[in-house]
Amino acid sequence: MSKVHIGIDLGGTNIKIGCFDSEIELLGQTSVETGAEMGPEVVIERMAETISKLVDDCDVAFSDVSAAGLACPGPAKYKEGILERPTNLPKFKNVPIPDMLSKRLGGKPVVFENDANVACWGEFAYGAGKDVDDMVFFTLGTGIGGGIISRGKLLEGCGDNANELGHIIIYPDGRLCNCGQHGCVEAYASAMWTAKRALEAVEAGEESSLKEVLEKNGEITCKDVYKHLTQGDKLAKRITDGTAKALALVCINMLHVTEPKRIVFAGGMIAAGEVLLNRIKEYFDEHIWKIKKETVEICFATLGEDAGIIGAAALAKQQENKR
Amino acid sequence: MSKVHIGIDLGGTNIKIGCFDSEIELLGQTSVETGAEMGPEVVIERMAETISKLVDDCDVAFSDVSAAGLACPGPAKYKEGILERPTNLPKFKNVPIPDMLSKRLGGKPVVFENDANVACWGEFAYGAGKDVDDMVFFTLGTGIGGGIISRGKLLEGCGDNANELGHIIIYPDGRLCNCGQHGCVEAYASAMWTAKRALEAVEAGEESSLKEVLEKNGEITCKDVYKHLTQGDKLAKRITDGTAKALALVCINMLHVTEPKRIVFAGGMIAAGEVLLNRIKEYFDEHIWKIKKETVEICFATLGEDAGIIGAAALAKQQENKR
Repeated sequence: MSKVHIGIDLGGTNIKIGCFDSEIELLGQTSVETGAEMGPEVVIERMAETISKLVDDCDVAFSDVSAAGLACPGPAKYKEGILERPTNLPKFKNVPIPDMLSKRLGGKPVVFENDANVACWGEFAYGAGKDVDDMVFFTLGTGIGGGIISRGKLLEGCGDNANELGHIIIYPDGRLCNCGQHGCVEAYASAMWTAKRALEAVEAGEESSLKEVLEKNGEITCKDVYKHLTQGDKLAKRITDGTAKALALVCINMLHVTEPKRIVFAGGMIAAGEVLLNRIKEYFDEHIWKIKKETVEICFATLGEDAGIIGAAALAKQQENKR
Repeated sequence: MSKVHIGIDLGGTNIKIGCFDSEIELLGQTSVETGAEMGPEVVIERMAETISKLVDDCDVAFSDVSAAGLACPGPAKYKEGILERPTNLPKFKNVPIPDMLSKRLGGKPVVFENDANVACWGEFAYGAGKDVDDMVFFTLGTGIGGGIISRGKLLEGCGDNANELGHIIIYPDGRLCNCGQHGCVEAYASAMWTAKRALEAVEAGEESSLKEVLEKNGEITCKDVYKHLTQGDKLAKRITDGTAKALALVCINMLHVTEPKRIVFAGGMIAAGEVLLNRIKEYFDEHIWKIKKETVEICFATLGEDAGIIGAAALAKQQENKR
């Protein structure tokens, strides 16, 4: 079997690795603890060993592996291949991680890309966007990440910071975001900020069934907020409406910028389900211009947590086709 | 001389036409009244005759003309080659204008594109963006038009409505835009809306030297507002600050989306000069995130009113290179 591709999703806690055939069908996958505290050399050694074992377990000759894709959170200089100082990998400072891994893999090419872009590419090539050419992608997690596909290609900027869609400003005089701007969509609508807005309201004395959650667990999660929404809590309704409205506004803005055929939401928060998706669509219809009817589709991602390894392998394959 | 390109800028009042050599150096240019009230057949006949005469005046054989580019305001189906019903050409309804012109030019190819995209391409290829690969472009006129260059290509959406940058929402609960949305950047920062906001304030009784302008001329123009700004009028200061802040916010948002190296402003309003540009930069610096230093350059267009014919000819040349 020739042209096997490896997809790697490097996180702060675990490294997920998939082994894929030339059609990006999964042959096998595995996961190993990152061990970030042991520093980059140890992590890369562990990554390479896990790849070797996985390839072996899939009955693939190592010589048939043609390339690997590596998804990492930033900040990084992706084009230069330097992982700068990711917050979840504190001992990694300016590490040339794709080069180090490539050397450890006998010189096989390693494609290095931002984790949100990789998941976007995975959904585009094999998931919720596989039948369209133009797509916008949002991941709703601690923050909001994004990706843009235009005419079948991942949009790149002049450096490594295009697609920072979570930092589109929607309320210029609004909440202070972690990035230092006011009113970023992330500061309203990520899972973490949705929970935080609920917490602030409960702490300010607003009436809510979430008060008991806070007293019992010492925290309120985004999952709690959506659970209490379905139980009829008014505060949960107000908070999640704010989340959906913020996401709808950023959908409208992205429609006017890159005109996607489909807008895909991914990340932990989509577990909230139709109650989230339908509310985004309602706000979209309410706030979009009326001079023409828009047909953009707003939907959820379909690959779940495998989007990273699938996207990384698919990017490795795509780069190979360019060579 | 082979490979001569014609650039056409079709407006409601005039048709501007330029004749360019293969390097898009201007050989000659002319202008003719559109005569829109006489309907599409007459306008296209006039356009074709004017092209013939211009080519002749430039000592070019008509057989050396290889292609023409035609810039039109929308709404249009550019990819299908249909001018739908532009507000400034009321007798044009679903006119296949590039096909009609092509036939009249003996079958020479006619590239058809949105006027803001054409001006963007002109500035990118031969003006303020000629040394960069990634650019965002805004025209500040009656409305706000836009264009995006990503990795040297004009960004296209799934239909004909990408780059509607004037309708990015920056104040969700803000002013009602002509498009039916609330808080579009256009509804604050186009030349027309800048003048209109000043007029509203004067009519509401706000103290200003612009009051005399209104009494004398029966209107307040954007030019008046900037003139009175330089004369120290407080209302003009507040209004133009609002314009600059809105433009800075949309620059920040576009930086986070497509990460341009340069953002270029064009259109009648840039006659206001440094007082406008510097204020946009100040608001940009104030509102941009602080987690990294941004180096995007914000500047004015350099081609002036010729951007349309230059961009149209350059697009015709580019399409030809694709064939």
